[in-house]
Amino acid sequence: MMKKADISKLIRPNIRSLKAYEAKEIPCRVKLDANEGPYSPLPAVKILADKAILSSLNRYPDPEGKALKSALAKSIGVSSRNILLGNGSDEIIYYLISALGGPVLFPVPTFVMYGVISQTLGAKAIPVPLDKDFDLDTGKIISIIKNQKPKLIFLSSPNNPTGNCFSSDRILKIIAASKGIVVVDEAYHPFACSRGFLSSLKKYRNLAVLRTMSKVGFAALRVGYMVAAEELIREVNKVRLPYNLNSISQAVALQGLKDKKIINALTKDVAKERSRLMKELSAMDGVTPYPSEANFILFRVGDADGLYRELLKQGVLIKNLNGMITNAMRVTVGTRRENDIFLKALRSALKKN
Amino acid sequence: MMKKADISKLIRPNIRSLKAYEAKEIPCRVKLDANEGPYSPLPAVKILADKAILSSLNRYPDPEGKALKSALAKSIGVSSRNILLGNGSDEIIYYLISALGGPVLFPVPTFVMYGVISQTLGAKAIPVPLDKDFDLDTGKIISIIKNQKPKLIFLSSPNNPTGNCFSSDRILKIIAASKGIVVVDEAYHPFACSRGFLSSLKKYRNLAVLRTMSKVGFAALRVGYMVAAEELIREVNKVRLPYNLNSISQAVALQGLKDKKIINALTKDVAKERSRLMKELSAMDGVTPYPSEANFILFRVGDADGLYRELLKQGVLIKNLNGMITNAMRVTVGTRRENDIFLKALRSALKKN
Repeated sequence: MMKKADISKLIRPNIRSLKAYEAKEIPCRVKLDANEGPYSPLPAVKILADKAILSSLNRYPDPEGKALKSALAKSIGVSSRNILLGNGSDEIIYYLISALGGPVLFPVPTFVMYGVISQTLGAKAIPVPLDKDFDLDTGKIISIIKNQKPKLIFLSSPNNPTGNCFSSDRILKIIAASKGIVVVDEAYHPFACSRGFLSSLKKYRNLAVLRTMSKVGFAALRVGYMVAAEELIREVNKVRLPYNLNSISQAVALQGLKDKKIINALTKDVAKERSRLMKELSAMDGVTPYPSEANFILFRVGDADGLYRELLKQGVLIKNLNGMITNAMRVTVGTRRENDIFLKALRSALKKN
Repeated sequence: MMKKADISKLIRPNIRSLKAYEAKEIPCRVKLDANEGPYSPLPAVKILADKAILSSLNRYPDPEGKALKSALAKSIGVSSRNILLGNGSDEIIYYLISALGGPVLFPVPTFVMYGVISQTLGAKAIPVPLDKDFDLDTGKIISIIKNQKPKLIFLSSPNNPTGNCFSSDRILKIIAASKGIVVVDEAYHPFACSRGFLSSLKKYRNLAVLRTMSKVGFAALRVGYMVAAEELIREVNKVRLPYNLNSISQAVALQGLKDKKIINALTKDVAKERSRLMKELSAMDGVTPYPSEANFILFRVGDADGLYRELLKQGVLIKNLNGMITNAMRVTVGTRRENDIFLKALRSALKKN
C-alpha cells in the first residue's frame, strides 16, 4: 500500500508545480466575465428538429467531422483538408504543442492557455511583454526568433485581454522571420474591423489561423478549428484523438453555420453595444477604457479589487485582471439590458470606492 | 516562404513516424465493428425536454461538470472528489500519460490507444504479450515492474479485443507489485460477471479505474471518467483542459444516469444476445469463438481477410483483426435483428470462402 506522498512523486515535476486552471462558478445575475456571446443565437426548436443525432446517441461521432469541416471550409473559402477540428481551440493548442514541442513564444498579457498548456506539456515558454500600446515588440521577438528558434508563436489578434488587434505589418514581419509555426488566434476576429490572416495562408506556409464558435454564441459546444497548410494539418491530425468532437456539437454547430444571419446579427449587436459601452465608460471619472476590436473592453480604474467586490455585491460579474495588468478589469459586451445594469452598478460602485 | 519539407522537420520525431489513427467510415447496413451499444437508450423526447441547455448555447460548460460528477459518484458509491471527467476515456488516457510520463506498460493485444497515445506524447511504451489463454503474464510483468519501473500500467478488463476478464488475483498481484499507477480500464465492465475493481480503490492508492458511457448507449456524447484516490485526481486534473466536456454531453449523460433502467435494459439485451451469438458461432464449422464478458465476441476463422470482404459485400461490417491476431475477427453484439443478419451473412460467406 502506498503512502500519501507517493502519488505526487509519480507526477512529472512540470505538472507538480502547476496549479489547476481555475474556472470557478461565481453566482451572479449578470455574467460579463467570460467573453461569451450575450445570447443563444440558434432557436432551440431548430436543434430539436435534428432527430437523427438524438436517435443515434449509441453511435460514435464522425471521427473526421466531415459535414462540419466542409461547411466551415465553404464559409471561409478553403478546402476541408486545410481544417482541423478541436474540442475548443484549447485542444488545438494542446495538439500543436504536443506535435511540435517548444520553445513556445507568446506576447504577454495574452490568453493564458498558451502558457498553461506549454507548462503542462513540459515545453519551454517564452513570454514577451507587449509594448506600451499593447502592440507587438517586434524587435525583441525577432531577436528571440534568431537566438532561441521557437517552434511555435501564438499571437491572439484581437488580443485577449487587451482588446486591440496587433499591427498587421508587425505580424507579417514575425511570420516572415520565423522558421517555426506562427499561430494567429482569431477567436475574436468576428468583432474586428481588420480582414484577419486567412488570406495570407497561401503566401506563408508557416502560418496557422485559429478560429472558434465560442465567441459568436456557441461556447457550450466547444468547437474550435485551425486553418493551415495541408501538411501541417496532416501532422497535427496524428496527435488528435479520433473522436474528439462529439456528435451533438458537430450537428448543432453545422446548423448554426447554415443560417449565417443568426451569427451576423449577434456580432452586429455586440459591435453596436461595444461602441455604446465605450462611450459611457470614457465619460466616467476614474475609468480609462482601451479601444477594442473584440467582444469585451479592457479598462483601468483606481482600485480594481475593491470595484470587483462592489460590482459582485450588485450581482455583476466581470473579470478582475489586477495581478496581470495593474488595476485593470475586463467586461464582456452583453445585451443592452445587461450592459445597462453593469453601467449602473459601476457608477454606483465608483461612488462608494 | 517555407519549402514543402520544412513543416515536417518542425514536427517532433515521435509524431513524424506516427500514422494518424484510422477511424474510417465504411458504408454498411449492419454496423458491428465498433463495440457500440445496439440502440439509443434515451428517448429523444427526454433530451428535448431539457430546454435549459439549448437556450444557453452561448455559455461555457460547467468546467467542473458538478452535476454529472455527483450523479456518477452516487451511482458507484464514491465522492465527486474521486472522479475526473473526460471527453471520452481516450482523453483521460492522454491526461494520465501527460501528467505521469512513461514508461507505460500494457499487455497486447489490447485497446490500441494506450500505445498510440504513449507514442504521441513521447512516452516509452512496454507492450507485454498475453499468455496463451489471453490472461496476464504476471511473471513477465512483475519482472518488468522491478527493472523498468513503469509509471503507468493499463489493464483493460474485460479486454478489448479478446473479450475476457483478466484473473482478479493476477491484477491484484500487479497492483501490489507496482510503484506506479495501475489503471484498470473497465469500459466493458457493464457486460461482465465480475465485480470489477472499484471496491479495491480504498485498499490500493495506486489503483485507478476507467469507466465510460460509450458502450452502454452513449458513444455520441464522449463521456468517460476515472475513479481514483483524491490525490491522483487532483494532480491529473491540473492537465485537464478547463472546458473539456461540452454542456450538451453533460446534460444528456445526466439524464441517461437518472433513469438507470434504460441502461440496465440495454446491457441485459446485449448479454442475452451474446449468449445466443456464442452458441451459434460455436456450432459453425471453421469458426472458433472465444468466451466473452464484453459486448463483442472474438472469433477465429480460416481466412479473416476473405471473410471480411465477403461480409462487407453483404453490407455487414465487423472488425478484421488479422495482423493483430492471426485470422481473428471481432463482432459487436447488435440487436437481435442485426445479429441474425450477421449470422446469415457469415454462413453464406463461409460457404463461398
